Amino acid sequence: MDFLKEGERLDYLLAEDLRIIQSPAVFSFSLDAVLLARFVYVPIQKGNLIDLCSGNGVIPLFLSTRTKGAITGVEIQERLHDMAVRSIEYNKLQGRIEMIRGDIKEIHQVLGYGKFDVVTCNPPYFPTPSREEINENEHLAIARHEILCTLEDAIKASSGLAKQGGKVAFVHRPGRFLDIVTLMRKYKLEPKRVQFVYPKAGKEANTLLVEAVKNGNPDLKILPPLFVYNEENEYTPEMREILYGE
Amino acid sequence: MDFLKEGERLDYLLAEDLRIIQSPAVFSFSLDAVLLARFVYVPIQKGNLIDLCSGNGVIPLFLSTRTKGAITGVEIQERLHDMAVRSIEYNKLQGRIEMIRGDIKEIHQVLGYGKFDVVTCNPPYFPTPSREEINENEHLAIARHEILCTLEDAIKASSGLAKQGGKVAFVHRPGRFLDIVTLMRKYKLEPKRVQFVYPKAGKEANTLLVEAVKNGNPDLKILPPLFVYNEENEYTPEMREILYGE
Repeated sequence: MDFLKEGERLDYLLAEDLRIIQSPAVFSFSLDAVLLARFVYVPIQKGNLIDLCSGNGVIPLFLSTRTKGAITGVEIQERLHDMAVRSIEYNKLQGRIEMIRGDIKEIHQVLGYGKFDVVTCNPPYFPTPSREEINENEHLAIARHEILCTLEDAIKASSGLAKQGGKVAFVHRPGRFLDIVTLMRKYKLEPKRVQFVYPKAGKEANTLLVEAVKNGNPDLKILPPLFVYNEENEYTPEMREILYGE
Repeated sequence: MDFLKEGERLDYLLAEDLRIIQSPAVFSFSLDAVLLARFVYVPIQKGNLIDLCSGNGVIPLFLSTRTKGAITGVEIQERLHDMAVRSIEYNKLQGRIEMIRGDIKEIHQVLGYGKFDVVTCNPPYFPTPSREEINENEHLAIARHEILCTLEDAIKASSGLAKQGGKVAFVHRPGRFLDIVTLMRKYKLEPKRVQFVYPKAGKEANTLLVEAVKNGNPDLKILPPLFVYNEENEYTPEMREILYGE
């Protein structure tokens, strides 16, 4: 496995017959990315899909199991972009997934406007931390905090990339729900499907999945809740299906 | 029971030791009103509470079991206001609940601004129907459709009545969620607690409960989901507790 760099592992991507390069010190994909990749609408036979803030490419890799369309991933960090490219090569998916290293705020200069049927984004969740925290681990800080990309940047870029009627799906924390839907409407994305994810029954939701339609009509549906763990702290059957295909 | 008018019944108000006058042809309270009366924060020992679009007074009656505070109900329809007044007298709650007949759009002329700790509202859910539908049953039409009171009217009035830091709670359909939160923020009400009600597991939510704080800070919590029926179409234990106190 000499294509792995220091500190990297080649992990299984869940139920799928795929492998993904990870590194705890640099970037590991989260459950949220998996939930988003499964939540979003995808055209099965063809179409153009794009994932913003792709990290190590987990969402493009996962999406490749759901669609025969062309998938693009955009990641600003050179180190993470490189991991994604090597994972795509390892899985022999170069013909179906293209990784672009770039800033989503300027990506329309390369990709133009209104070309994509589906846009996904698992953006940084947290406000910009103090300078000390940033210095401690730059890779993780950029992936987790709104340093290079704010929520508004991500929503604005998504709207610009989406076709009329195209789908834009985000995963985030419920505390930002009102900001997300307000920003989506500001950029002509109408929220249509929302699913809240609860760690277990009786707890508040800790994850939000939302899908909007570019220039869609108002008609919001709240999907059935998704519970991650049962009372015994084991994955629920619905989560086992998502994670392991059982 | 000669205080009942034609077509009226004296029904039990659920688990509570209360009775309520209803009339299928004029107005019967809904599960949504009960859910709202139980969802909203209430000060237990004292305080001023007000319910807008009160109908036959179901929410004020229910709230009287949760608080020793002073409760006001506002209803524009003379026929429904009269039913509420007689129910309150029957339950000997005249000293704790006052019903006002009036238009919520002008109620600040009587009640002033910023006097209430809690405002509740189960507003008409549906857009204004055609003239034929209105003529068919005026009482039900006004209670169900935005004829005399739009969602914005109700939210604007609620904000005007609430104190700084006061709670404003609404029940509505999930399809109007974005309109509600957008209007709430427009009128300085910050949504803080949301609960979605699902008819059963695996179904989309059909009811939305939302509580905002007047001039509050953004911090939205999504409470655990509430399921009404189990797989056998019986009330779930949590619903039986709400309805029958079991």
